[in-house]
Amino acid sequence: MEKVKGLFCNETAYQTPKIDTRAAIFKDNKILLVHENNGTWSLPGGWCDVLETVKTNTIKEVKEETGLDVETIKIISIQDRNKHNKPIYAYGVCKIFVLCNVIGGEFVENIETTEIEYFPLDELPNSLAEEKTTKEQIEMCFKAYKDENWQVQFD
Amino acid sequence: MEKVKGLFCNETAYQTPKIDTRAAIFKDNKILLVHENNGTWSLPGGWCDVLETVKTNTIKEVKEETGLDVETIKIISIQDRNKHNKPIYAYGVCKIFVLCNVIGGEFVENIETTEIEYFPLDELPNSLAEEKTTKEQIEMCFKAYKDENWQVQFD
Repeated sequence: MEKVKGLFCNETAYQTPKIDTRAAIFKDNKILLVHENNGTWSLPGGWCDVLETVKTNTIKEVKEETGLDVETIKIISIQDRNKHNKPIYAYGVCKIFVLCNVIGGEFVENIETTEIEYFPLDELPNSLAEEKTTKEQIEMCFKAYKDENWQVQFD
Repeated sequence: MEKVKGLFCNETAYQTPKIDTRAAIFKDNKILLVHENNGTWSLPGGWCDVLETVKTNTIKEVKEETGLDVETIKIISIQDRNKHNKPIYAYGVCKIFVLCNVIGGEFVENIETTEIEYFPLDELPNSLAEEKTTKEQIEMCFKAYKDENWQVQFD
């Protein structure tokens, strides 16, 4: 019971899904993934800090995990995490994918990632961090990137 | 200090902005507003329940506050509440506006609203519930409704 209370933080009124932002960054028809400390690959991103917006959090997470400076271009998707990623979490998570464009910076060693690399869709690494980013989510980002009339997908 | 702790619910790790969904529903170039119990008018919507998605929460809130059944059409905007609505809240709120289409139902008396009404943009009620919905936010919904190539606005 204490564990469950902890998960929901004893909140009774305004508990809502948590927000996670993910950046889709392309170069030469390849997508940028970050190599996490645990050896898996993921789109750069993370929990939206409480005083950040979707836009500023996306930019901040990319900077922290890749060293790159980006600008945001458009929203790709607003997903209910438990419909797409495993393991299922006890709390709801709203994952917001944002197409971004690199405007500066270069990889800097940091506490979260060991390297960054651009991958074509047909040569994605096997070891995706599927609790954060699945192959289907990366495919969706490619589609949104190529489609000027992309309509934001949402659950 | 206890009050501040309570606001952030003692959470140290994954605190993120809370999600609020708002539905934009049009008929004959008028937008549907709900008359709240306190006498102010607002777009139907509310906190996203933790096990709901943006889509299902939008539909649920419309049903609760208007009696209408809607389907969601497209995302209009993802806003940082504190940039648009007053009073400023201590915690972050991500307001997601969703264009919807009525597919059934009729107004039913409920505990939150006393009536519903469609308003043209130039005849909006003076007593908007600005902590939830401002005139600027309603204007944005009209623009998104009329523009087939609307790009999701986001903060």
